[in-house]
Amino acid sequence: MSNPSAAMLVIGDEILSGRTRDANMFFLAGELTKHGIDLKEVRVISDDAPAIEAAVLALSGAYDHVFTSGGIGPTHDDITADCIAAAFDVHLGVRDDARAILQAHYDKSGLELNETRLRMARIPDGADLIDNPVSSAPGFSLRNVHVMAGVPNVFQGMVASVLPGITGGTPLLSQSLRVMRGEGDIAPTLAALAEDFPDLSVGCYPFQKDGVYGANIVVRGTEGAQVDTAMVRLAKELQA
Amino acid sequence: MSNPSAAMLVIGDEILSGRTRDANMFFLAGELTKHGIDLKEVRVISDDAPAIEAAVLALSGAYDHVFTSGGIGPTHDDITADCIAAAFDVHLGVRDDARAILQAHYDKSGLELNETRLRMARIPDGADLIDNPVSSAPGFSLRNVHVMAGVPNVFQGMVASVLPGITGGTPLLSQSLRVMRGEGDIAPTLAALAEDFPDLSVGCYPFQKDGVYGANIVVRGTEGAQVDTAMVRLAKELQA
Repeated sequence: MSNPSAAMLVIGDEILSGRTRDANMFFLAGELTKHGIDLKEVRVISDDAPAIEAAVLALSGAYDHVFTSGGIGPTHDDITADCIAAAFDVHLGVRDDARAILQAHYDKSGLELNETRLRMARIPDGADLIDNPVSSAPGFSLRNVHVMAGVPNVFQGMVASVLPGITGGTPLLSQSLRVMRGEGDIAPTLAALAEDFPDLSVGCYPFQKDGVYGANIVVRGTEGAQVDTAMVRLAKELQA
Repeated sequence: MSNPSAAMLVIGDEILSGRTRDANMFFLAGELTKHGIDLKEVRVISDDAPAIEAAVLALSGAYDHVFTSGGIGPTHDDITADCIAAAFDVHLGVRDDARAILQAHYDKSGLELNETRLRMARIPDGADLIDNPVSSAPGFSLRNVHVMAGVPNVFQGMVASVLPGITGGTPLLSQSLRVMRGEGDIAPTLAALAEDFPDLSVGCYPFQKDGVYGANIVVRGTEGAQVDTAMVRLAKELQA
């Protein structure tokens, strides 16, 4: 049986304008790999309602899970919840369970749960809340779409909340070998290895350091013994 | 007249598996903004031929320009050139101009231009070469798709080669204001500003530092005077 598949949707003008370097994609990719879920695609789009709705529907239909980041805060450009509700044609409103979480949070900090902040308690009908261990305002899962905040530490906390409830597959194992030879030298060896081990993926990531060419070769697979065997062969052949 | 639009396609299993943190998206986003080209979407997909072909066609049809990174080296998993040629139904073969560039490079370094390295001289019919100031093997532009390497310093060199030949628009200007107040406090002020300045984009990027809530507010637009006016108003209202 193959692993469940997933896509990520990053929502935010700040990434596309080059103002902010995305951190959530790298974090989620690592967590999904550990959990045995294959991340197949990531899309980054702007805070634009038609674009968000179209991407959510396309990815939700194509993969087992969709993870979104960004656009669920209290400001005018936080439109993700509206778009998810519109995409699935369900009602969006302030929900009592979400309001209670926010009320408790603001009571503790002595701030008022004003109308602006109450926007963060708007949850689509039928969604399950995702716990936010950092700043309380919850994310939510609707069908196979998991909607989370864009602020990295909040996103990470929400991923930790949602992943244990998702059935994973076999985690992908990887081993790597660093060689100080150019790709053009080692490519035939790698191609032969990839052919002999069709269940493994063999990747080659070249670099240049102080004018010398080198490469990191990464072998990935779900069977540890097979990865071991391939790596022993690789080390032997590339030392010859 | 609005600015030209663009999409980026990042090709590579190493990003989706969480092994490598992408650096090219952040770099390209900044360069396009300076050049007056609006980056509207980024997709990250794996080294999978049908996925690459489908994404190239979808993005090429939807935007003025598509920039790809990754998959043009000499190894078995470098299939980007094949996929671009297949997507546009043109022939792919070793081209004399690309071969001459590689020959000169390897002559200088005393290495053999073997069959594996010659893979990097395969260019689709009708494409223009993109100069690679780092390691010689060229990228190429076919129709509105600009195909570049994934290794960050090579990617950056190729972007510098290709951008001057592309007609840009009005560069986006931005100014930012850092306030030590929570989003829930300042959201009404920002919403009113966004409504009064429909040509500007007003973004709010919250952070938490040592338990204190703050936010960076970023105002973007193509008219410097308008951005100035909005920032003066913002500073005044948020200091009150």
